Amino acid sequence: MFESAELGHRLSKDEYDSEEPRLREALLNAQYELLKDVRFPVIILVSGLDGSGKGDTINLLNSWMDPRYIQTNALGAPSEDELERPTMYRFWRVLPPRGRIGIFYYGSWYTRPIGERMKGKTGNAELDAKLDEIVRFEQMLTREGALVLKFWFHLSKKAQKARFQALEKDRATRWRVTATDWKHHALHAKFSKVAERVLRHTNSTEAPWTVVEAADDRYRNITVGQAVLDALTRRLQQPAPAPPQTGRAPKRRNDLDVLKNLDLKAGLKKAEYEERLAALQGRLNRLTRRKRFEKLSVVTVFEGMDAAGKGGSIRRVTEALNARQYRVIPIAAPTEEERAQPYLWRFWRHVPGRGRIVLFDRSWYGRVLVERVEGFCSEPDWQRAYGEINDFEEQLARHGAVLVKFWLQISAEEQLRRFKEREVTGFKRHKITDDDWRNRDKWPLYEQAVCDMIDRTSTDIAPWTLIAAEDKRHARIAVLETLCTRIEQAL
Amino acid sequence: MFESAELGHRLSKDEYDSEEPRLREALLNAQYELLKDVRFPVIILVSGLDGSGKGDTINLLNSWMDPRYIQTNALGAPSEDELERPTMYRFWRVLPPRGRIGIFYYGSWYTRPIGERMKGKTGNAELDAKLDEIVRFEQMLTREGALVLKFWFHLSKKAQKARFQALEKDRATRWRVTATDWKHHALHAKFSKVAERVLRHTNSTEAPWTVVEAADDRYRNITVGQAVLDALTRRLQQPAPAPPQTGRAPKRRNDLDVLKNLDLKAGLKKAEYEERLAALQGRLNRLTRRKRFEKLSVVTVFEGMDAAGKGGSIRRVTEALNARQYRVIPIAAPTEEERAQPYLWRFWRHVPGRGRIVLFDRSWYGRVLVERVEGFCSEPDWQRAYGEINDFEEQLARHGAVLVKFWLQISAEEQLRRFKEREVTGFKRHKITDDDWRNRDKWPLYEQAVCDMIDRTSTDIAPWTLIAAEDKRHARIAVLETLCTRIEQAL
Repeated sequence: MFESAELGHRLSKDEYDSEEPRLREALLNAQYELLKDVRFPVIILVSGLDGSGKGDTINLLNSWMDPRYIQTNALGAPSEDELERPTMYRFWRVLPPRGRIGIFYYGSWYTRPIGERMKGKTGNAELDAKLDEIVRFEQMLTREGALVLKFWFHLSKKAQKARFQALEKDRATRWRVTATDWKHHALHAKFSKVAERVLRHTNSTEAPWTVVEAADDRYRNITVGQAVLDALTRRLQQPAPAPPQTGRAPKRRNDLDVLKNLDLKAGLKKAEYEERLAALQGRLNRLTRRKRFEKLSVVTVFEGMDAAGKGGSIRRVTEALNARQYRVIPIAAPTEEERAQPYLWRFWRHVPGRGRIVLFDRSWYGRVLVERVEGFCSEPDWQRAYGEINDFEEQLARHGAVLVKFWLQISAEEQLRRFKEREVTGFKRHKITDDDWRNRDKWPLYEQAVCDMIDRTSTDIAPWTLIAAEDKRHARIAVLETLCTRIEQAL
Repeated sequence: MFESAELGHRLSKDEYDSEEPRLREALLNAQYELLKDVRFPVIILVSGLDGSGKGDTINLLNSWMDPRYIQTNALGAPSEDELERPTMYRFWRVLPPRGRIGIFYYGSWYTRPIGERMKGKTGNAELDAKLDEIVRFEQMLTREGALVLKFWFHLSKKAQKARFQALEKDRATRWRVTATDWKHHALHAKFSKVAERVLRHTNSTEAPWTVVEAADDRYRNITVGQAVLDALTRRLQQPAPAPPQTGRAPKRRNDLDVLKNLDLKAGLKKAEYEERLAALQGRLNRLTRRKRFEKLSVVTVFEGMDAAGKGGSIRRVTEALNARQYRVIPIAAPTEEERAQPYLWRFWRHVPGRGRIVLFDRSWYGRVLVERVEGFCSEPDWQRAYGEINDFEEQLARHGAVLVKFWLQISAEEQLRRFKEREVTGFKRHKITDDDWRNRDKWPLYEQAVCDMIDRTSTDIAPWTLIAAEDKRHARIAVLETLCTRIEQAL
């Protein structure tokens, strides 16, 4: 894989001087077009051997283009905040919005998997598993519109040695060669082997690697600049994707589904409700005060037809909690900053730290529910979302989050009754809008979307709990009971 | 101050039961109106003695209202990220946006000043200085539209003891009384004295304290709920402020000002420029690699008439830096999330950590420049901004930031020449818009705003450097020179 990057590619000063000004102007032009268009973000990864000039090339890219719209991320050791959350959290936080360029330097999503393999903390199988996740992450980014460019700077062992020696000879650059560099140099063969495996596994169609022979500064810089320019230009020339059409998903063949199978009749008398509510709230409260709870985090999702009682159920849960432990995140239309990012970005923002509970009132499932049914995204977009959501939830679960997902189901008749009630009773009037009536007309489409969602995203680590919500009391008790049980299992 | 909070206020169960449902519904109604209106944020501080039931009352407020739109902040020990920035950074980060309610529990901006005074780390004079800052901060919040409500829960020493004992007697609540609580109990008199000083000093018209006798749960909860309701209702009934009128500031009397005093003719030959540029970039680069630089942070501000060469100057600076040390923040129109916050919020987001450099291409000075001249904010708004900006910069400087502010000045003729050049040269065409031509018509108004700005915000800790920018080379060298000198002084 690295053979052609050890052939001694060079560029003379004359060649460089004749190419550089043209390249520079073209890059700046392309960048301004990107800014004007604001259609997609550009993510550039620069990885490779020590001493291969990663920093120099990145500095040069920043000086060729307008540095105001480039974000260079060099992430050091993770902070406490980051350690309390899944590994990918820190990368999500700094993804460039549409129109901007984000460069990942050291501390990219490749750094840890490679480092752990080098230290022997992981074997090839574990490395491969991590690389698969990376492939899926990058696939998600590109399908969300990002242009992802990955460069690997290579040096032969001999060339690396020569570079270190040259740097050491000059007083002005001596500081750049450290003891670690020489230690890494001794591991050149091992590192190249691991790197090859990494590149092979993550060389996807959407986000391929460009291996660059890095010994000659001029050759390396022009090669990278030209590659960025080519990719950017090609992408800018592509027409913007057509707006999605209203979702006309294939109808499910049979009449029997998980929703129809749910007994909506279940109910509870007031006295029994009150007694059980108090008992369950006490139980939940005690659970969250346990010493071991400080190690967990809890992510709950409340989805359901309009007026199914999500808000009321959430309130019965929060009443049992200490206000400083939880946060309720109501999901409405995304803000401008959120719209400039992949759709999962706005949820990653709210991933809780240890000992915390987040309650999502609607969630990332909007992608496969309202966005699907209303045609806010294309069919390929919501089809791929199932897998992306499973990946997201797996990362949460692996990091110690308890995931509890509720679907609150009511009948169409009960919804109508509640809508009418809302229209007449005082403070409930804010809760009913024209949208609610419109959504109601699409009831069968929503039901189908719900069934598909449950089939594809009810997993071992993050199962859906279907709640018969025709009777509010029954629903609230069921929610609290499930939540307590799931937390108990995790403790 | 606390006398009337030791009189034994109580509410019988009957009184409570008759008041609670009405209060609850009214609070919820008011909250929904706030949400619908999205005119202002509500900030509620709950402070006071240990064992005074702060947590209980906050939980109750969350259950009376819709917890989805309430953010309860209990801030523990600051994180690394927060420690690298001024003390107020963490509070800015979690300010509620318009339409929402933010509750500050423990870990409010009062916590540290009180704690340090109690431990004897500070004397009264230092405490007072901190309280003055708090008063100004709260003033800024209220003038930016926030409704700020501050509650202080008081218990007599006897009542506090009785509460601790009652909690300890019950198995279910025993855990809530800690050794620290009893230690604090012994300090009741001292704490009350410090608290009185704090309340006295921070009892401003805009954000007064409400002292609440906290011994009786029912009395305390209804009192707070009613106070929140009253304040919220009163504020919701006030008409929204009229939109500001275009700025017609009093004309300065004389003809001589700092801008006219600037010799715009200064120029540099190309050869000399290139030599000095290389030398200064080298000097800057070496400065940022010093060990001690890791302790500093640098905040630079670039302001200037349109086409004065801000971007070009910034690029000559960033060329000398390592891409992972700096970030350029171009300031354009605020995003939706930024518009829902006080105007300084969007700059606080970008306050750098240690060893980092942030370059603002336009800045918070927009408030007293474009917003003043174009009438985007009212005269009282930009008038008070001078003081608010000085406070902001003082906090940065005190925390070890080097503040370097540049005003790049060109003549009206030179601007015209550059505008015309931009219209004809390739990639510069994106840089000229109709706005630029419009702003040009208001040249004298801008000049006046600039002079006022410099007079009022050029301080010892954050002086303005006026740069004659008629000649680009001269300007770039002057910028680099100033920056180097300021960093050297700080090291």
